[in-house]
Amino acid sequence: MADVSRWAVKLEFDGSAYVGWQRQDNGVSVQELVEEAASRLAGGARVPSVTAGRTDAGVHASGLVAHLDFPPGFTLPPHRVRDGLSFHLKPHPVAALDAAPVPPDWNARFSATSREYRYTILNRPTRPALLERRVWHVKHPLDDAAMAQGAALLLGRHDFSSFRAAACQAKNPLRTLDALDVSRRGELIVIGTRARSFLHHQVRNMVGSLVLVGAGKWKPERMGEVLAARDRGKAGPTAPPDGLCLTGVGYPEDPFSEPLQENRSTSAL
Amino acid sequence: MADVSRWAVKLEFDGSAYVGWQRQDNGVSVQELVEEAASRLAGGARVPSVTAGRTDAGVHASGLVAHLDFPPGFTLPPHRVRDGLSFHLKPHPVAALDAAPVPPDWNARFSATSREYRYTILNRPTRPALLERRVWHVKHPLDDAAMAQGAALLLGRHDFSSFRAAACQAKNPLRTLDALDVSRRGELIVIGTRARSFLHHQVRNMVGSLVLVGAGKWKPERMGEVLAARDRGKAGPTAPPDGLCLTGVGYPEDPFSEPLQENRSTSAL
Repeated sequence: MADVSRWAVKLEFDGSAYVGWQRQDNGVSVQELVEEAASRLAGGARVPSVTAGRTDAGVHASGLVAHLDFPPGFTLPPHRVRDGLSFHLKPHPVAALDAAPVPPDWNARFSATSREYRYTILNRPTRPALLERRVWHVKHPLDDAAMAQGAALLLGRHDFSSFRAAACQAKNPLRTLDALDVSRRGELIVIGTRARSFLHHQVRNMVGSLVLVGAGKWKPERMGEVLAARDRGKAGPTAPPDGLCLTGVGYPEDPFSEPLQENRSTSAL
Repeated sequence: MADVSRWAVKLEFDGSAYVGWQRQDNGVSVQELVEEAASRLAGGARVPSVTAGRTDAGVHASGLVAHLDFPPGFTLPPHRVRDGLSFHLKPHPVAALDAAPVPPDWNARFSATSREYRYTILNRPTRPALLERRVWHVKHPLDDAAMAQGAALLLGRHDFSSFRAAACQAKNPLRTLDALDVSRRGELIVIGTRARSFLHHQVRNMVGSLVLVGAGKWKPERMGEVLAARDRGKAGPTAPPDGLCLTGVGYPEDPFSEPLQENRSTSAL
């Protein structure tokens, strides 16, 4: 276990071209791109990774945290790990925002105490041109106040079976939802959510039901009834991946709290 | 002149794949895509257009206004013109946000009384993954307060020769700058500007100089000195097109003030 040089990295990526974080046979995964870039940085050694969140195909990230196990003896200043990963990830829309050495018993997945996601809906008649593949386009006018009312009914510790994908591998459907905020910003409806962890498709399934509330097809109270039913068949459809972004992962101690030494000679001018 | 059915349209587009608004020999223009879509809507007739702003290659728009001259007798409800254009513009990242019939002497270019642009800088060490081709990436930390100070010196009516492209075809370099606001939103620096009209490359040239101020290479006062010099050689470099977006065009009377009849039977659910 101590026979590695473990690093935490914070990643941003446009997930629209990938099969998701995890390696799969049917396409390119973000994980393989990151591990290949890390391998180049380590002179060809294999560098396995563990992520705090296995994002689905088409889902984006602005603050995913993973750990990378470089070979023992691998040492570089943190800003060079960040910049080296970002360099070797070119031309893919995947980049490292931060990097920090962590103890070998620190685990990006199991040490995490919270995950934050943002779901963005473009609510206007016309399809997105500038935000293509970044939003769920809903033409029908949505009542964001009603959505916020319905969302509040899901807060707290509950059995979220109604919002859980059939393929979900979690042993326990109990989760504690700490935040589910709905707000309108012009044509956008932004839904921010936070929990220690989420079930598979939980965010997209909650959003799919909230849009039924926003469209007036469901009253806000129905969110509570669907939750109590603990039956996936009672909830709305799964919202598309495009609007979902993993925005942050929390740890008891922020692994990136040390400010990186910037290379001040690198001017963009 | 009255022998056409003139329509005003509001357009959004991702300019990164195009040679700019205007038709050119060296690539696809937004103008030809819009005119072709309009032609399909008009059963094959030629539909010439005039724009309020001839955006450069790589520049985006979230509120460009153009007029289209459909053949006389062309009539459709406004929402069907909007939706039909957006449909025929597929799969291009160009879409119509609004449409309205206008009198034949109304002119998208000459009737316009203001243009608004937004320029976005991503100011962080790591290159953009999610905002690729939407921002100017400046690695070096920028002092947005100093930039705002420098920007204020350009407000009002001046000879903007120092910020004018060599290729600019305007007869007169006098322009009245009504707004040039610099604000930071986390890693983003957003520069909003408004004027009756701008010289060619004026916004990008002002931004190129403001970034020198933000980097500490120029004191804010130098913006005023450069303006007074009326010499393009004194100003900073032209900022890249990626960060620029035409956000709106103003008219004495808003041609889109009538709410469109939405097709309420079209649900996104």
